[in-house]
Amino acid sequence: MARNLTVAAAQMGPVAKDEPKAAVVDRLVALLREAAGRGSELVVFPELALTTFFPRWFLDDDEMLRYFETEMPGPETKRLFDEAKRLGVGFSLGFAELHTDDDGVTHRYNTQVLVERDGTEVARFRKVHIPGHEGNEEWRPFQHAERHYFEPGPDGFGVWWAFGGLVGMAICNDRRWPETYRVMGLQGVELILIGYNTPLFYAPDPQQDALAGFHNDLVMASGAYQNGTFVVGVAKGGIEEGVESLAQSAIYAPSGQVVARCVTTGDEVAVATIDLDFTRFYKETLFDFDRYRMPEHYRLITERRGAEPPAE
Amino acid sequence: MARNLTVAAAQMGPVAKDEPKAAVVDRLVALLREAAGRGSELVVFPELALTTFFPRWFLDDDEMLRYFETEMPGPETKRLFDEAKRLGVGFSLGFAELHTDDDGVTHRYNTQVLVERDGTEVARFRKVHIPGHEGNEEWRPFQHAERHYFEPGPDGFGVWWAFGGLVGMAICNDRRWPETYRVMGLQGVELILIGYNTPLFYAPDPQQDALAGFHNDLVMASGAYQNGTFVVGVAKGGIEEGVESLAQSAIYAPSGQVVARCVTTGDEVAVATIDLDFTRFYKETLFDFDRYRMPEHYRLITERRGAEPPAE
Repeated sequence: MARNLTVAAAQMGPVAKDEPKAAVVDRLVALLREAAGRGSELVVFPELALTTFFPRWFLDDDEMLRYFETEMPGPETKRLFDEAKRLGVGFSLGFAELHTDDDGVTHRYNTQVLVERDGTEVARFRKVHIPGHEGNEEWRPFQHAERHYFEPGPDGFGVWWAFGGLVGMAICNDRRWPETYRVMGLQGVELILIGYNTPLFYAPDPQQDALAGFHNDLVMASGAYQNGTFVVGVAKGGIEEGVESLAQSAIYAPSGQVVARCVTTGDEVAVATIDLDFTRFYKETLFDFDRYRMPEHYRLITERRGAEPPAE
Repeated sequence: MARNLTVAAAQMGPVAKDEPKAAVVDRLVALLREAAGRGSELVVFPELALTTFFPRWFLDDDEMLRYFETEMPGPETKRLFDEAKRLGVGFSLGFAELHTDDDGVTHRYNTQVLVERDGTEVARFRKVHIPGHEGNEEWRPFQHAERHYFEPGPDGFGVWWAFGGLVGMAICNDRRWPETYRVMGLQGVELILIGYNTPLFYAPDPQQDALAGFHNDLVMASGAYQNGTFVVGVAKGGIEEGVESLAQSAIYAPSGQVVARCVTTGDEVAVATIDLDFTRFYKETLFDFDRYRMPEHYRLITERRGAEPPAE
């Protein structure tokens, strides 16, 4: 019955602003080899893995474009694709995507790609929930201007047959919204791959800072449990350009339990062999959606964007 | 700015099958007085607080009706309402409700009532997610035949102005579904009151049993955090008619932190003074729904009841 898959959370430490992309790809290749050497079939890298987390600055268009990829694989990243194919290892990688659509319109997305063991791209996910702010907010010690850089992904949360199961993706802030997991759960997802960059200092409410690790586990463990799916959450952590970010990368079972965890804040691989059939213990009992869900009472979730209190 | 409210989780230990209702009401009154003596303004009792958890047996219609209330307050429960009014304390109480509608049709609901400090009923919530099974499943050591006894509440998840804020309710299995919290979150809920009876032995998958306390915290803490609301979860725990149920009643802040906890498995009161304005730290920052939610990508949540994997 077992549908075993060996998965790696390939956490990264900081990427400096002036770190050459070739050096970053060297690190990715090293993590890939380490994971492959430990039997991994699928290696998950963080959000915006190729560069520093540039939304901490408010840059003009010329400056920002150096952080975006116009093709994937591109000249620098082809080496990662080639090495993965050579090793027979699949991977998922986050990057800033400059995409020109069929009408010649250019879009900037916060993107994560899923690549099969033969080197072919299975799917491309574009972050749906863009956090932070649009303008330059000078009162902050550093910016979180993701809404300046990225438009929301237009395709929502897909699920794809790959790696012997049903795989979905989400990026960073997406993981805080239960709808993210549920939309994939309603497509039968068994494994969700999530990259993140999470500054420990949250300027709008610093009393949340000490809870960053707790909240990180809370949302991914509950998303896993409530949808009977594995979740792999992978950080770019450590102190990058003076800003400290959460590490704590982990692999969560459908029970909500952590089955593997990174313990440093740097480049580190955490590996787990997971049985995708274990998802059934939740999908076919307590969370048998077809038997127990009550969508007729969920309508506000799609009818309403903001909260509207009843009349007093 | 503080909108302080002192809330009590009034946990109950077992209620035996042959325990007279008057004796149960004695216990409720004792808990109410204990909570009032510690400054509580709102006391939350468990699901089906007046009787043993009868869905563990498969009873015929005549037998089951002794567990249902045809009026609230009724002859035995009036004493609780009177004492609460005398003390100036509000409360929320779970009970099995036999309701005859305007067309003369009789309905059986798993119900929780919210009563203000002046003794008036503010709201009545009827459990939406009915777990367990419809028939008598003889392979089980005990039944969980809630679907034999109760129809789902027809009114969904409302939110009411009461106790100086916006209050909602849910019952037991409702707490495991993120939609429960979200539908109330979209009405601005600040305090959700949840009674439960949760057997520690889960016949369809006993490997979940040791995780019962973890899952209980996971779903209520994430529901609180992701909606910026306080949650009060109150058990009927301990070993009742040979079946052990989870206790672990707790009050959760919008941070997901536990601010008060029962530590026994018997009749016990846990009290916390909560500031309903603390909800703003989450509702107006990270979880500013109107700014950040993306309902156009949530449509499957209401369009679909069961999971439908994509074509292979």
